[in-house]
Amino acid sequence: MADLIVEPIVTTGPIAGSTKIYRDLDDGARVPFRRVGLAGDEYLDLYDTSGPYTDAHAVIDLHAGLPARPGVVADRGTQLQRARAGEITAEMAFIAVREGVPADLVRDEVARGRAVIPANHRHPESEPMIIGKAFAVKVNANIGNSAVTSSIGEEVDKMVWATRWGADTIMDLSTGADIHATREWILRNSPVPVGTVPMYQALEKVKGDPTQMSWEIYRDTVIEQCEQGVDYMTVHAGVLMRHIPLTVKRVTGIVSRGGSIMAAWCLAHHRESFLYTNFEELCTILARYDVTFSLGDGLRPGSIADANDAAQFAELATLGELTKVAKAAGVQVMIEGPGHVPMHKIVENVRLEEELCEEAPFYTLGPLATDIAPGYDHITSAIGAAIIAQAGTAMLCYVTPKEHLGLPNRKDVKDGVIAYKIAAHAADLAKGHPRAQERDDALSRARFDFRWHDQFALSLDPDTAREFHDETLPAEPAKTAHFCSMCGPKFCSMRITQDIRDAMAAKSEEFAAHGNRVYIPLENSVP
Amino acid sequence: MADLIVEPIVTTGPIAGSTKIYRDLDDGARVPFRRVGLAGDEYLDLYDTSGPYTDAHAVIDLHAGLPARPGVVADRGTQLQRARAGEITAEMAFIAVREGVPADLVRDEVARGRAVIPANHRHPESEPMIIGKAFAVKVNANIGNSAVTSSIGEEVDKMVWATRWGADTIMDLSTGADIHATREWILRNSPVPVGTVPMYQALEKVKGDPTQMSWEIYRDTVIEQCEQGVDYMTVHAGVLMRHIPLTVKRVTGIVSRGGSIMAAWCLAHHRESFLYTNFEELCTILARYDVTFSLGDGLRPGSIADANDAAQFAELATLGELTKVAKAAGVQVMIEGPGHVPMHKIVENVRLEEELCEEAPFYTLGPLATDIAPGYDHITSAIGAAIIAQAGTAMLCYVTPKEHLGLPNRKDVKDGVIAYKIAAHAADLAKGHPRAQERDDALSRARFDFRWHDQFALSLDPDTAREFHDETLPAEPAKTAHFCSMCGPKFCSMRITQDIRDAMAAKSEEFAAHGNRVYIPLENSVP
Repeated sequence: MADLIVEPIVTTGPIAGSTKIYRDLDDGARVPFRRVGLAGDEYLDLYDTSGPYTDAHAVIDLHAGLPARPGVVADRGTQLQRARAGEITAEMAFIAVREGVPADLVRDEVARGRAVIPANHRHPESEPMIIGKAFAVKVNANIGNSAVTSSIGEEVDKMVWATRWGADTIMDLSTGADIHATREWILRNSPVPVGTVPMYQALEKVKGDPTQMSWEIYRDTVIEQCEQGVDYMTVHAGVLMRHIPLTVKRVTGIVSRGGSIMAAWCLAHHRESFLYTNFEELCTILARYDVTFSLGDGLRPGSIADANDAAQFAELATLGELTKVAKAAGVQVMIEGPGHVPMHKIVENVRLEEELCEEAPFYTLGPLATDIAPGYDHITSAIGAAIIAQAGTAMLCYVTPKEHLGLPNRKDVKDGVIAYKIAAHAADLAKGHPRAQERDDALSRARFDFRWHDQFALSLDPDTAREFHDETLPAEPAKTAHFCSMCGPKFCSMRITQDIRDAMAAKSEEFAAHGNRVYIPLENSVP
Repeated sequence: MADLIVEPIVTTGPIAGSTKIYRDLDDGARVPFRRVGLAGDEYLDLYDTSGPYTDAHAVIDLHAGLPARPGVVADRGTQLQRARAGEITAEMAFIAVREGVPADLVRDEVARGRAVIPANHRHPESEPMIIGKAFAVKVNANIGNSAVTSSIGEEVDKMVWATRWGADTIMDLSTGADIHATREWILRNSPVPVGTVPMYQALEKVKGDPTQMSWEIYRDTVIEQCEQGVDYMTVHAGVLMRHIPLTVKRVTGIVSRGGSIMAAWCLAHHRESFLYTNFEELCTILARYDVTFSLGDGLRPGSIADANDAAQFAELATLGELTKVAKAAGVQVMIEGPGHVPMHKIVENVRLEEELCEEAPFYTLGPLATDIAPGYDHITSAIGAAIIAQAGTAMLCYVTPKEHLGLPNRKDVKDGVIAYKIAAHAADLAKGHPRAQERDDALSRARFDFRWHDQFALSLDPDTAREFHDETLPAEPAKTAHFCSMCGPKFCSMRITQDIRDAMAAKSEEFAAHGNRVYIPLENSVP
C-alpha cells in the first residue's frame, strides 16, 4: 500500500461471551450482529460495529485490506438524491435490517435530510450505517497521529480497537507525517465510515502556515481524499470575517483548529473565507463520490464561559445557509456542535440547530458540562453528551481522558468509546428507542438471577466486568454463587428478595386455600 | 481505642499546587479552604473537605484522633430546634463562611427543613457542613468492610483518601467483623460527618437472620451508634407490609439490603415494620444527640425496568408521613432516593420527593441512567447524578466502578469521588451557584494562557492531569510551552487565536487612525 514498513498488530476474535452472526440479504450482503449467548440457549442479538475482526472465522490480512461489500453503485448519485427519487438503495436495505426498522423509514429520513448515510463509493470496505435522530444514537472515535507522537501501526490498531468497543465511525485527524499513507491504511481496513478534516493535510502542504493556504491547495486535498474513500469531511465553511470580532473577548477564543486557521487566513488576506466563497464547487466535488459534509463549528465554545455566545450562534446561522446550498446540490449534510456547555444551556443548542439547519443530523463533541476536570473529560463530557443526545443529537464525538492534555493511547480510546456508548445508550433509553431497553432488562435479569457469566457477556465491556468481579472472588464457583463480595453471603438483598417471593407465593396458595380473604392491605394510592 | 492491633497508613500533605488556609471565627473555630496558588501571586480559594490531613503544619496522630472543634453545645436541642428559635449556632456561622452565604440563609433553610446540618454532639472532630438545595451540591462516599474483604486500616485510609478528593460525608457500611471498632477509628479521625445504616450492625447481632431481629436489638444498636458519634443514620422505616406485594413482579425485586431485611421480617412475623411502629421513640433518641435521619428508600429500583414504579412511590409517600413526624419531634431529616432511573424519568423523582416530603433534602444514589455498563457505573450514574442534582438533589451518594461487582478499593474510591465531584459541580453551574463558575473560568484562562501548572492545580485531580500531560511531554519547558502534544506546535488553535487577537488589536489602531471606517461587516443578527 505504501513504501513505508508498516506491520500493525490488531485485536481479533469475538468479544467474550458473544459470537458473530449475519443476516444474509438478497444482494449477497451480510448484516452483522453480535449474538450474546445466555443461559438456557437464550440469546440477545446486538448492533455490531466491529467488522470481521470479531468474527472467529474471518481471515484478516491488513496488507490486503477488508473485502469490498456488494451493492456499491458509483454512477447513480448520492444516497440523498436516490432517496428523493424513491429508491431504497442497497445501503438503506442493509441499514434497515441493522437498525431493526422499516426500509421506508430509512429512505424517508434520508430524503428529508434528517439522516445521512456516509458511504463514499470508494470505501466499499465499510458496512453501511445511518446517522439521524430517528435511529440509535451513534458514537465517533477520533484517532490520528500528530507531529509529536504515534505511528501508522498504532493508529490502525486504535481504529480496530475503537470499533471493537462500539465506535460507529472513525475520524482520522492525523496532522503529522505520512498523512496520506496513514489514511490509506485506515480506510482499507475500516469496517466503519471514516471522516477527516481535509484542512489538516492541506496545511501540511504549506508547511503549517495558514496564511499560505489557498482554495486550490485545499480543493486538491479534498479531491485526493474523496478519491481515497473518505466518507465524510469536516469543513469549517461557517467561519466568516464578520464573526471574528465576536470571539475577541472570549475566555478561550477560537479553540477549533480548522476555525482558527480560517480566521487567521481571512485576517491575513482581508478576504472572505475561501471555503464559503467556493462552497458550491465543493458541493459538486463531494456529490461525485457521495461524501457527506460535516459542517464544522469552527467557533465552538472552548469553555463554560463562552457557551452559547454570539460567535457560536452566528456561525450556526451560516451553517444553516450552507446546509440549504449543499442539499440543493444533492449532498448529504450533518452539523457539528459544541464543545463546552453547562447543562442548562445544552438543549438550546439542539433547538437552534434544528431550526436553523432544517434538522440536519447534529454531531456534537461532548459537550463538557464543566471545565474543571482535565484527566476525566470523558466523564465531564459523557454527562453533556447524554443530555444533548436525549434532546436529539444523532452522533456523539467521543472525548477521551487525555482531552486537553495529550494524544489518546489505546486505553484512552477504549475509555472514551465506553463512556460514549453509555451516553448514547442512556439517550436511546430516554428517547424510547424500541430495542434499547431489551439489553438493560436482560442484564438486570441476569444480575437478579446471579447469572454472572450472562451479566458479563451483556455488558458494554465484559472483560472489565469480569476482572473487577474476580478481584475479590476469582474462583469459578463464585460465578454461580448467590452472593457477591459487596455484602457477603448473609446480607444479600437479592437472595432475601427471592425468599420473599417464595413466601409470597406460599401465602398466595394459603390465601386461596382460605377463601381469598385479604391479609395485606393494598391501599397504596400513589401512582 | 480498641484492643485490635491497627496501624492505618493514610495520605497526608497538601494537594499539589495548593496550600491549606483558614478563616478564624470569634469562637476559635477555623474555617478551612484550599488555596490554589496561581501565576502572578493570584489565587483561588476553594471549599475544602479534607480536614487537617492536607495541612502541611498539622500533626496527625490516628490513635489519638483529630482534635475537637470549639463551639459544640450538647444540651440545647437540635440544629433544627435552635434554628426555629432564631438562633445562629456555631455550626451555622462556620457553614456560612464555608459556603460564602449569609448566616441567616443557613439558619432559615435549616428552620424550614430544606437543609440539614448532620452534627452529632458526640462527633466534635467533624467540620460543620450543610446539605440542602440552596447550597453547593454535596457528595457522600461509602466505605466499610464486608464479611469477605478489607480491614480497619484500609477503611481509615479510604476515609481520609475520599475526603482528600472532596467527599463531603462518609458512610461506614461495614457488615463484617469488628463493626464497632471500625466505626470508632473512622469517627475519631473523620473531618466530615459520618453516616451509617444501623440495621447492618443489628443484623450481625442476630447472626444475619432477619427474622430474629427485634425492635429492642435495633434500638440498642442505634443508641450505641448515637453515643459513639454517628452524624446521620439510614433508617428504612418506609417499607410497609402493604408495599411488599408491589415488588413481586419487578425485574430486580428489592435491592436495598435494609429494605429486604425489613420486608423479610414483616413477612416472617406478619407484623408491620417495627421501624415504622416505633418511629416516635426513634425520634426521641436521635433528637437527644442531634443525629439526622436519612430516611432510606428500601424499595428503590434496582434496574431501569423498575424505575418510578408503584412500590417506589408508595414508599416515598410513607417517607413523607415520617418526615412530618420527625420534624415535629425536632429531628433533622433527609430523604434517600434511587437507584436506577432512565434520564426521562429522573426529574419526576425530585418533583414528587419535594411535594411529599416538604422539600426535605434529597440524597440520591446516582441514579444510574442505564444498567448495561458494570465496571463503569461511576459514569452511568454520574450522568443521572448530574441531572438529578440540577433538579434539586442536595447530596449525591457516589457509585464506584466496582458497583455490582465487588467492594471498592482505594483507586475505586477516588474514581467514584472524582466522578461525583464532576456531577455535583456540573449541577452547581447549571443552578447558577454564585461561586461555581469562578473555578471553571480560572482554569480555562490558565488553559488559554498555557499556564500548565495553574491548569493542573485548579483541576479536581492535579496529580492525574499532570501525569497525563507528562506522558507525552515530560520536560519542564513543556509546562510553559505554547502548545501541547495534541496538535503539536504548528497547529495550535490557541496560539493562532492569540495571533488573531494581536492582529485585531493592530487593526483597531489602524482603523482609528483612518477615521473609524468599518472594514468588517458586523451584521450578525443571531442572539
